Amino acid sequence: MSTVIERIRNGVDTEVMFGTLDTIKAQPELGKFQFRARNRWIDGAHNRTTIKDFYGAGQEDASRAEEFTVDAGEPAILLGTDTGPNPAEYLLHALAACLTTTLVYVAAARGVRLTKVESMLEGDMDVQGALGLSDENRNGLEQIRVSFRVEGDAPEEKLRELVERTQQRSAVFDMVTNGVPVTVDVATA
Amino acid sequence: MSTVIERIRNGVDTEVMFGTLDTIKAQPELGKFQFRARNRWIDGAHNRTTIKDFYGAGQEDASRAEEFTVDAGEPAILLGTDTGPNPAEYLLHALAACLTTTLVYVAAARGVRLTKVESMLEGDMDVQGALGLSDENRNGLEQIRVSFRVEGDAPEEKLRELVERTQQRSAVFDMVTNGVPVTVDVATA
Repeated sequence: MSTVIERIRNGVDTEVMFGTLDTIKAQPELGKFQFRARNRWIDGAHNRTTIKDFYGAGQEDASRAEEFTVDAGEPAILLGTDTGPNPAEYLLHALAACLTTTLVYVAAARGVRLTKVESMLEGDMDVQGALGLSDENRNGLEQIRVSFRVEGDAPEEKLRELVERTQQRSAVFDMVTNGVPVTVDVATA
Repeated sequence: MSTVIERIRNGVDTEVMFGTLDTIKAQPELGKFQFRARNRWIDGAHNRTTIKDFYGAGQEDASRAEEFTVDAGEPAILLGTDTGPNPAEYLLHALAACLTTTLVYVAAARGVRLTKVESMLEGDMDVQGALGLSDENRNGLEQIRVSFRVEGDAPEEKLRELVERTQQRSAVFDMVTNGVPVTVDVATA
């Protein structure tokens, strides 16, 4: 196996990865990040988030050349015009994306070459909660089921162990299962 | 004020909205929804979610003509190539979008015409947690701050009351602040 193949695993530069880990170990203050999102209401259920700047590794990021634009909406049955996925669907996407990237990174760190990672997420919601029609239903999803299909150059037990480790390390899995304190400020006019 | 102006408020058809509420009140089983997301790993931190089908109001939805495609990534400092916002940023977007749509609907229901809704979200994360370098840091964001700017045809006190009500009704605000049970299944090969 050539050095190039060893270094880049699952699309991750493992030399850079281990270097990053060593750097943060040596200077823990570099671990502090701040992520941001700016949202603007357009009309009805249509609103748009722009994402670009963040703080990390001791400075404001200057690497992102362009901002990302993400549109949200609702389907007709929920009074929208399908201008984008709805917020609950975006939360499922955030969870799927984080679990997948975490799995890919964990596998790269442990020398496992993955060939396929697919997932299907389902979340159950009784909208009586959010609509204020019933106190017996919460506003959000009652539960989320994640079904992974994972293939790679490792025995089944190893792949399952990587997915276990992924759940112990994923940022969004932590947030969605354990919750995060949120403060809301309002300025008017 | 004409009937048309009264009926459509903040881009929401209030007649349809109140009709939907009445229908679910009469048949609570129509409140059951299931949302879904399918994710596929592409390379490194790049993965893609497709979103289309969902169950709601007693049937599989047939109204969405096309699926939504949403790409995730990481910036260079987090070992990616900026193929999209990262998962934590998508979680901030999901929260912003849900609070905004909930506010717009709540205002429409209560007869308040909004003219501007903007929000800035910030989330603090020490990546030592997710990187497995420190047990003192959680994997996810430690806290999220939401700053709203809301303008509309109502006194400041009313606008603030609507934002309060929004926090009591938003699906994603509930999920992010209180957490959701998540199960993970794995199939290999």
